[in-house]
Amino acid sequence: MSAPVRAGIVVTGTEVLTGTISDRNGPWLSEQLGELGVEVAHITCVGDRPQDMEAVLRFLEDEGVDLIVTSGGLGPTADDLTAEIVARFAGRELVLDERLERRITEIVQGFSHHLRRDPEAMRAGTRKQALVPRGATPLDPVGTAPGLVVPKEGGPTVLVLPGPPRELQAMWPAALEAPALREVLDRAEPYEYRVLRLFGVPESEIAKTLREIEAEGVDLGRLEITTCLRRGELEVEIRHRPGAEAEREALVEGIARRHGPRLFSRDGSTVDEQVAEMLAGKTIALAESCTGGGLAARLTDRPGSSAYVAGGVVAYSNEAKIDLLGVPAELIEARGAVSREVAEAMADGALERFGADVGVGITGIAGPGGGTEEKPVGYVCMCVKTRDGAKLERDPVIPGSRADVRERATLIAMHMLRRVLRGEAGSDGP
Amino acid sequence: MSAPVRAGIVVTGTEVLTGTISDRNGPWLSEQLGELGVEVAHITCVGDRPQDMEAVLRFLEDEGVDLIVTSGGLGPTADDLTAEIVARFAGRELVLDERLERRITEIVQGFSHHLRRDPEAMRAGTRKQALVPRGATPLDPVGTAPGLVVPKEGGPTVLVLPGPPRELQAMWPAALEAPALREVLDRAEPYEYRVLRLFGVPESEIAKTLREIEAEGVDLGRLEITTCLRRGELEVEIRHRPGAEAEREALVEGIARRHGPRLFSRDGSTVDEQVAEMLAGKTIALAESCTGGGLAARLTDRPGSSAYVAGGVVAYSNEAKIDLLGVPAELIEARGAVSREVAEAMADGALERFGADVGVGITGIAGPGGGTEEKPVGYVCMCVKTRDGAKLERDPVIPGSRADVRERATLIAMHMLRRVLRGEAGSDGP
Repeated sequence: MSAPVRAGIVVTGTEVLTGTISDRNGPWLSEQLGELGVEVAHITCVGDRPQDMEAVLRFLEDEGVDLIVTSGGLGPTADDLTAEIVARFAGRELVLDERLERRITEIVQGFSHHLRRDPEAMRAGTRKQALVPRGATPLDPVGTAPGLVVPKEGGPTVLVLPGPPRELQAMWPAALEAPALREVLDRAEPYEYRVLRLFGVPESEIAKTLREIEAEGVDLGRLEITTCLRRGELEVEIRHRPGAEAEREALVEGIARRHGPRLFSRDGSTVDEQVAEMLAGKTIALAESCTGGGLAARLTDRPGSSAYVAGGVVAYSNEAKIDLLGVPAELIEARGAVSREVAEAMADGALERFGADVGVGITGIAGPGGGTEEKPVGYVCMCVKTRDGAKLERDPVIPGSRADVRERATLIAMHMLRRVLRGEAGSDGP
Repeated sequence: MSAPVRAGIVVTGTEVLTGTISDRNGPWLSEQLGELGVEVAHITCVGDRPQDMEAVLRFLEDEGVDLIVTSGGLGPTADDLTAEIVARFAGRELVLDERLERRITEIVQGFSHHLRRDPEAMRAGTRKQALVPRGATPLDPVGTAPGLVVPKEGGPTVLVLPGPPRELQAMWPAALEAPALREVLDRAEPYEYRVLRLFGVPESEIAKTLREIEAEGVDLGRLEITTCLRRGELEVEIRHRPGAEAEREALVEGIARRHGPRLFSRDGSTVDEQVAEMLAGKTIALAESCTGGGLAARLTDRPGSSAYVAGGVVAYSNEAKIDLLGVPAELIEARGAVSREVAEAMADGALERFGADVGVGITGIAGPGGGTEEKPVGYVCMCVKTRDGAKLERDPVIPGSRADVRERATLIAMHMLRRVLRGEAGSDGP
């Protein structure tokens, strides 16, 4: 097996460094590179100081990476310096690409009526963006900024991409066609991937499972196993070079044997995908209080969800619960707005008002205020019911912030839906 | 003015590098450090390979940073190596801290009934987590992992924090008290900050504004100005050392003069904060189709929102629009479910059904399917109305993916709300 092809990612932009925004390009690029068999050694965010970016490029070269991918710093303004820095790093002079200049001019004229009022500024910006290191391959702009593939004699190839995630992602396929990049990627041996997902299993328990499976004689050293707990869902990512399929299968079986139905996905499918698939031909309606539309927003996030999401009611006030969902006022009076009974009445109301096949009711105390000793902040009552009488209820006390409670409650509801749609509701008892 | 205090942030975890999750710690730490006057030079994500992390630590030392903050790699399992790597980097031996060991044992026994079944694994994990570089200050665990402040003779101080954002953030105040860290931070001169927010201004236009203000003789070189376009909102962050207040004010006035009401925030307040504040004493109700509860979820994200959010209806189907919101069936028939008229009828329905002061109706085609030549994907009709008759309408065609359309429509609705609540609806015409 040849040495792995390794890459470094350099994300530029002061707004990432100052914490103003969270970088989306690094993870996205990592995932793409990983699928191509390229190992990502570092993702680094640097600001607008040229010397910081230069230092990172040199560092990555010293680390022996084969490929560097940069994002950002390609705009028309003077503080966007990536092309210049990369040209210097690769020992290549910047030259004007006239074809590219015409192309950018066309694009800018097409959409920017503001700049047309200032043709001089436009020309300066366009000319700057059309400067290309000699011998580099420009990539056609998606916004106004072209990408670049810049080979370095005896060093890593640098792929220069724009910062806006939409532009960067749209440019990716063209980048992969550039000969200098092709040449690097052809040396990469793709990994085999498998993602397992578990719900309701703590990370410490999966660590123990791995130790046990290893003790049974399965050589886990041939697998790269990453476990990651994300707000209650545990993701186990298994990567390996071709040839370790038997070890991988032994691992998957070992996990399945120990964790049973809590291993809800063996093929990487998410709970959202599973629920969407099982809702085909049915309709669902939602009655949400503390999650405030979060479950509706999550379900309707999927293309095609209009086929099965009938709708929902965000019933924050008692009046809304009574008027729009038909929850009996006496029930709220007797049991409280946050109670298993009201959650069920909300699910019933959703079923009935929308004429749906599946109904969900969620009522709880997201905080930070509103908690009592009996019903503390984080107490959430949830009920999933179907038209034909299946029912699943939960009323956990969810720790954390308001956002945590809302997000976690939404996730639990998704898993309740999964179980009910799979016909597992009966196993839960009343 | 003394040399700025500079820091590097090192985020560990294969799941960040493989793109499985997006790092939240880097931006958060950056923001905290920025507020303390520390300049963040680099944020780097590295995987579980010890040599990659060692290389980054050496790189940051060579770059001359005064402080390194790490997150992650402090768990009880063998692949969590941060403490060991940092100890080696700082030239300090790892020694068992018995007080810390007792503390972690208490914590683990308190919450992990799984591990109590495997006391040996627990002891090994606890002992590992209680190993501290000699001379370092341990920080009391929030989860099970203690943090560390590790000074390096003649080099940067390293602050070692756990990976889960909740634990990392909760540990921050204690970290700031550690003498070795205090000593570094005391040398930092805090920046002055100002954040401006604009809506409906392209980044190229603000670049032109900055050039013009500079041409008027304002010395912008004394300010660090970052502009960042985030899905239609433009954020202008101004940072400067004490003494450049006049330049900053001249800049703010110059922007205000050119962009008028499109500069909606001079004090960094977000549109969400402004809308929440103006809703005090009123109630709001939402009728959403294509945003699927996204606006309700955004409004109810704020603590205390139950005081003014009466509720909402997610009316995906025509039946739901008719039955739950009272949109006339004939209107849907005549104008189509996605039309200005239906958006207004939905706003009316929300006002009426929830007895609210402000109503919002949103109907559109989020895609990827469902578009026509007349009403393409991305066409969204929005209406904000108040009980006393103010009205604001919009029907843009929003470019991008389904997620882009939904998010952008939600943002536009927030800004429409802002304008209506400010009493600016009249300026819009019918």
